[in-house]
Amino acid sequence: MDELTKLSVNDVQITSTFWKRYRDLIAEESVPFQWDMINDKGKMDVTNAAAAGGAADHSGAIENLKIAAGRAEGHHFGYPFQDTDVYKWLQTVAYVLKYHFDPKMKEEADWTVDLIADAQDDDGYLSTYFQIDAPQRKFKRLQQSHELYSMGHYIEAGVAYYESTGNQKALDIAEKMAGCINNHFGPEDGKIHGYDGHPEIELALAKLYETTKNKTYLNLAKYFITERGQDLHFFDRQNKADGIDNDFFPELRTIGDRYYFADKPITEQKDAHGHAVRVLYFCTGLAHVARVEHDDKLLKAANTIWNDIVKKQMYITGNVGQTATGEAFTYDYDLPNDTDYGETCASVSMAFFTKQMLANEFNGQFGDIIEKEIFNGALSGIALDGKHYFYANPLEADPLASKLNPGKKHIALRRSSWFACACCPANITRLIASLDQYLYEIHDDVILSHQFIANDAKFNDGIEIKQTGNFPWDGNIDYAITNPNTSKFTFGIRIPAWSLDNYSIKVNGKEVEPDLKENVLYIPINDKTTAISLELNMNVHVVRANANVSADIMKVAVQRGPIVYCLEGVDNEEPLSRYVLGQKPSFDYNYQSKLLNGVGVVTTDDAYRIADDSDDSLYTFDRPKGVEKAHLEFIPYYAWANRDEKQMTVWLHQSEI
Amino acid sequence: MDELTKLSVNDVQITSTFWKRYRDLIAEESVPFQWDMINDKGKMDVTNAAAAGGAADHSGAIENLKIAAGRAEGHHFGYPFQDTDVYKWLQTVAYVLKYHFDPKMKEEADWTVDLIADAQDDDGYLSTYFQIDAPQRKFKRLQQSHELYSMGHYIEAGVAYYESTGNQKALDIAEKMAGCINNHFGPEDGKIHGYDGHPEIELALAKLYETTKNKTYLNLAKYFITERGQDLHFFDRQNKADGIDNDFFPELRTIGDRYYFADKPITEQKDAHGHAVRVLYFCTGLAHVARVEHDDKLLKAANTIWNDIVKKQMYITGNVGQTATGEAFTYDYDLPNDTDYGETCASVSMAFFTKQMLANEFNGQFGDIIEKEIFNGALSGIALDGKHYFYANPLEADPLASKLNPGKKHIALRRSSWFACACCPANITRLIASLDQYLYEIHDDVILSHQFIANDAKFNDGIEIKQTGNFPWDGNIDYAITNPNTSKFTFGIRIPAWSLDNYSIKVNGKEVEPDLKENVLYIPINDKTTAISLELNMNVHVVRANANVSADIMKVAVQRGPIVYCLEGVDNEEPLSRYVLGQKPSFDYNYQSKLLNGVGVVTTDDAYRIADDSDDSLYTFDRPKGVEKAHLEFIPYYAWANRDEKQMTVWLHQSEI
Repeated sequence: MDELTKLSVNDVQITSTFWKRYRDLIAEESVPFQWDMINDKGKMDVTNAAAAGGAADHSGAIENLKIAAGRAEGHHFGYPFQDTDVYKWLQTVAYVLKYHFDPKMKEEADWTVDLIADAQDDDGYLSTYFQIDAPQRKFKRLQQSHELYSMGHYIEAGVAYYESTGNQKALDIAEKMAGCINNHFGPEDGKIHGYDGHPEIELALAKLYETTKNKTYLNLAKYFITERGQDLHFFDRQNKADGIDNDFFPELRTIGDRYYFADKPITEQKDAHGHAVRVLYFCTGLAHVARVEHDDKLLKAANTIWNDIVKKQMYITGNVGQTATGEAFTYDYDLPNDTDYGETCASVSMAFFTKQMLANEFNGQFGDIIEKEIFNGALSGIALDGKHYFYANPLEADPLASKLNPGKKHIALRRSSWFACACCPANITRLIASLDQYLYEIHDDVILSHQFIANDAKFNDGIEIKQTGNFPWDGNIDYAITNPNTSKFTFGIRIPAWSLDNYSIKVNGKEVEPDLKENVLYIPINDKTTAISLELNMNVHVVRANANVSADIMKVAVQRGPIVYCLEGVDNEEPLSRYVLGQKPSFDYNYQSKLLNGVGVVTTDDAYRIADDSDDSLYTFDRPKGVEKAHLEFIPYYAWANRDEKQMTVWLHQSEI
Repeated sequence: MDELTKLSVNDVQITSTFWKRYRDLIAEESVPFQWDMINDKGKMDVTNAAAAGGAADHSGAIENLKIAAGRAEGHHFGYPFQDTDVYKWLQTVAYVLKYHFDPKMKEEADWTVDLIADAQDDDGYLSTYFQIDAPQRKFKRLQQSHELYSMGHYIEAGVAYYESTGNQKALDIAEKMAGCINNHFGPEDGKIHGYDGHPEIELALAKLYETTKNKTYLNLAKYFITERGQDLHFFDRQNKADGIDNDFFPELRTIGDRYYFADKPITEQKDAHGHAVRVLYFCTGLAHVARVEHDDKLLKAANTIWNDIVKKQMYITGNVGQTATGEAFTYDYDLPNDTDYGETCASVSMAFFTKQMLANEFNGQFGDIIEKEIFNGALSGIALDGKHYFYANPLEADPLASKLNPGKKHIALRRSSWFACACCPANITRLIASLDQYLYEIHDDVILSHQFIANDAKFNDGIEIKQTGNFPWDGNIDYAITNPNTSKFTFGIRIPAWSLDNYSIKVNGKEVEPDLKENVLYIPINDKTTAISLELNMNVHVVRANANVSADIMKVAVQRGPIVYCLEGVDNEEPLSRYVLGQKPSFDYNYQSKLLNGVGVVTTDDAYRIADDSDDSLYTFDRPKGVEKAHLEFIPYYAWANRDEKQMTVWLHQSEI
């Protein structure tokens, strides 16, 4: 480039119709609703308590902070990490205020920052459970205490709120916290040589470093990342010293280090295992620190885990964490659809992790996975009303099974308003509210646009990029690039894996064939204005899983653009397991503006329904009674369970072998 | 008939090669081995503790009786129902002594009867846990105490031992026990109006009635049967009075009356639900009492439950109880193969229940299910060495899944020598040892032969029936009937459902076409000697499940005669999920005398293997890579897991729709 020494993004405003609806919903419905919940106002409607650590009648989260701040009296209520519900709400607010300013919301957030400051100990410590009810046990049972996890969530929120509003106190709290943690943890003599059972502090400290440029935080993040799994007796020793059965979560004492992703140092880990969100929060910090530190070993470790997940342990929707037991990964190619956990938090944190991977390396595969999460697995965690949330996001559901087969009781057919352990609601809202941060990455002289989410973006040097289009329903994407100083830079566009076989691109009206490297097109920009038109392949695709996935053998799924579709019993006669897709099905697509807040519906008549034999015997030597032609209607997976409680399936049979 | 007023069977000796091996194994290996186990001699090799209430290093069962008898000191060890391991061993011995007399075994059994007599309280009560450690809590917490369950098991054993050996003390103990129970339970004022959380006493009292003809026992059995589910607060009231959290099994206090099959009176029950063995023990007593009492309502109730199980909740192997959680039934047509529990005890008790149903009504369907259990689901519970046992009998198994997917941790790939809760070992051995009781039923002037198990049977009036053949490997069955007094009677032969389409029968060398009613052929007998030759259809069949069974859609199983086959990873390259059977496969069959103690092996070359794509991406729009021809070897299901720990599956894909 000429004068321009370093490209940077100043502002991104999302204009996408699809996402504007969601983001306004977060601002107008979710944030006020969650504020009521954490303030113990309003009714909690918990339908899938099995997946959420039991039902609760109130949150107590703000009240706990009031007690710790000396503004109220009483005991702590809820989990040791109850504080994080407030912090994730605050983080959502920080993002919302940038696109949907609301003075009342800001007032509540400022009040909350003041409350948190008051609740914080002079030395920077903040975890209301320990402050109120067990001050002598601070940092004494990190396997289960979630203290660094909780403070990490605050640090993220504080940094975001400071960045958004300039509230210095919000940042000061975070720095004081980090200072407290730095005083207690690290390789030096006299400090605790250990880490939290639940990662989060790593990614939070990396963010705090980015904002403050204080290397102490980066070093501490790296310490936690490299220390994990080094000393396999750390948790045990702490537990014994703290009183062996003085547990917060008795089942977590003996569950083993694999659950904590702490069974070996990260550079020796070969796959994702244990509690999914722990793995993914950890890897988000790992990839971030690896990039900032230019640490190839850590970067390689991050790649190893990311590849294992994406190539061997991820559902087609992007959901991860196959089992409800321990909310955990299981093993490669084990992807049962009907017992799947696929926690909303896990999909959200897979997006976090992948954003860091993409910042490390411009490779279309990372953008593909962010897209997969935000349009499918993560998005299904929130109802169309913005006020109900899923914990588990299965690929197959049946009301009868959830009720009568205990192995499927974690599969809810209806999203809940809140949970005793309310991690998921504000996790999905903070992701959607921060989606503007997921559109561009910059390396040297390259601006990469990796998501097809219409937006107006301003960069330094007066550069502006306007993306328009009606994605995900329409595949025509237009970019108008303004470059008033005719600086030289390169514009990168990710070509999604689902369109690689068929796309076309025009620059200033002329068809071009630019370089495609790692699924990214690179277009040199040096004019004052450049118009780019991209046409993606929006044909409906039949998707097949790798033959190592036993659960999906002889089954297929339906996808159009980034959207994974499903059959719901509302639209198709049950049982859904009876449908068989024809060998070369043709599909129709139509956008229905009145259905489910506007969705593209896929239909086919190239399907069959295995004939009914309800009155027959259970087993027979007879050949099948035959099949009848069937018409099938598919809706986007993210929109399921917003109508009647019916069966749902993503995968359906296909007779082809 | 002429002079003969009532037909009765005097003696049945099993001569079948297949079953003689098993029955000699029970006598020579299992009984001595189990004796060592309950006497705390020898090493326990527990590999599937997850399914068996945890691992144990010893049994303590005989020791508990010694303590109760005043011959030793100490506390009770194990579960409150630990006594039953001794009783079921004793019952097995009772049956074994009739076909494989062993003076040492009899001596041990007599000694055990004496010990039990000494342990019994003067009032007839016997449950060593309560006698030793909680005498004040007798009959105070029946939801969990298993007291009537334990005494029921003794009563069964005592009756059997008396019938087999004439040991009067064995019967006296049983009668004293029944007297004690009758003193404490019943509709009269001052008695407990309730029942045991675990049925068993009902069937035991019915047996005691059959031997003693004392109507008190029958009435008491009927009381327990009709009282169950009448008072939904019985357990709760007892629990509260006993100290609400003074539980033996805390999880069983709030599990709900459905688990106990006590949510409504039996005449109102529509399906099987809750703990499978509880349902089936209960229904065994129900069907027995219904017959003896000519109670049509109870008989109808028994038919309702039996039909629900067989037509909607039974695996093709006869295994029942779909979920490990509560070892329970789930709901109609819910038959997942890879999370199946299918407890050995449940298959054994399904045989008990069905034998009672057949005694009520001569219908081939009952004989079919007995056959299904003894050749498949129940038999798979015992290893070929007679000394290792399964709790769970899945239809699909994978060592990796059992290790790394917690939802499948109950699926063992290897049978265990013993369990902390050791109900299954002696349950399967007492069934096999009593198999001679499962061959004939008599109604009026009809002798029904309903199992193809070669035997020499003696009836009254000098009638003898000799069945020969090499079933289940060979379908030629010969009967030689001797009738010295040329009495007139009818000989019934069940034609199995799997041979109904193709069988032939010759009487004295002449092809005949006798009446077939409810799948039973009726042949009038009035000569001194009659020779009957039956030829059954031993073609290999491809079996399809009802289309309501979502787990088996587009899958098939392989069956030959009564034997359900499976693929094992020992014989076929894994993963087994990749195999697809051709549309009209032809099979070869050959008996391999050196394999698995002699089994008929089924093979086919009309199969395909979906091509490998281990290195490909997890999801693709590409068409399948194709298939390669495959050779498949099937072994009988009952014999699986007797070699290396590998994958196993009963159902495999078929491309036909």
